[in-house]
Amino acid sequence: MSGELGFEVHLDLPYEDAVDKVVAALKSQGFGVLTRIDVGATFKEKLGEEFRSFVILGACNPALAFRALTIDPVVGLMLPCNITIEADPAGGSLVRIANPEVMMKVGALEENQAITEVAREARVKLENVAEMIIGD
Amino acid sequence: MSGELGFEVHLDLPYEDAVDKVVAALKSQGFGVLTRIDVGATFKEKLGEEFRSFVILGACNPALAFRALTIDPVVGLMLPCNITIEADPAGGSLVRIANPEVMMKVGALEENQAITEVAREARVKLENVAEMIIGD
Repeated sequence: MSGELGFEVHLDLPYEDAVDKVVAALKSQGFGVLTRIDVGATFKEKLGEEFRSFVILGACNPALAFRALTIDPVVGLMLPCNITIEADPAGGSLVRIANPEVMMKVGALEENQAITEVAREARVKLENVAEMIIGD
Repeated sequence: MSGELGFEVHLDLPYEDAVDKVVAALKSQGFGVLTRIDVGATFKEKLGEEFRSFVILGACNPALAFRALTIDPVVGLMLPCNITIEADPAGGSLVRIANPEVMMKVGALEENQAITEVAREARVKLENVAEMIIGD
């Protein structure tokens, strides 16, 4: 994936099943799905354009988010953690999970060591998610 | 704001009025609010922790998002554009608007010139939003 923005996983599952699997794996790591943007439906409705099945999930681990926002409320511009799932034109589904440590490199947030530590913990949990959905 | 992640504007308005003003300004620049996370309520519900009034809006200009995702679906990890509004403990409200050009520096997305152009257009529109809410 461009510039290692996160983890990319291909699943041999139809789109809807892939979404369910990702949501369950996130939950097991303490991430709730706070937002869900159906990109295909949005483009159809707003622009009349066709787009493949594509969802942007906004996942949040409340304890980590609370720590981060208490340290520096600017982190709110980088929350929640995004996960995208799309129907792969080649078959199956493509899951991308943003790496919170990479996200914190924006705007020099990484210079704050306490923020870096929260981002590291979030990254470990999201790596677990990636491993869970691959390994199941 | 840390590392110039975006634009920060202080408004002499109560929190709820500031939210309404920002949403109206976004709309005038073609940005719909696709997601809205009430951070204070979420922390209260999930953690039993008190937090000031704080909302994370996910704003999306469908035409720009369609162009960006058509060029590179990885951009989905950076969408929608975040705007945070919080009650300023010193009075009034604090609005932060992520700068899409800065966001695209993550993960080397900026190396793609077509993506950079979309980010530039989005940044101009969001600067207009910042100017509108200051100037009204």
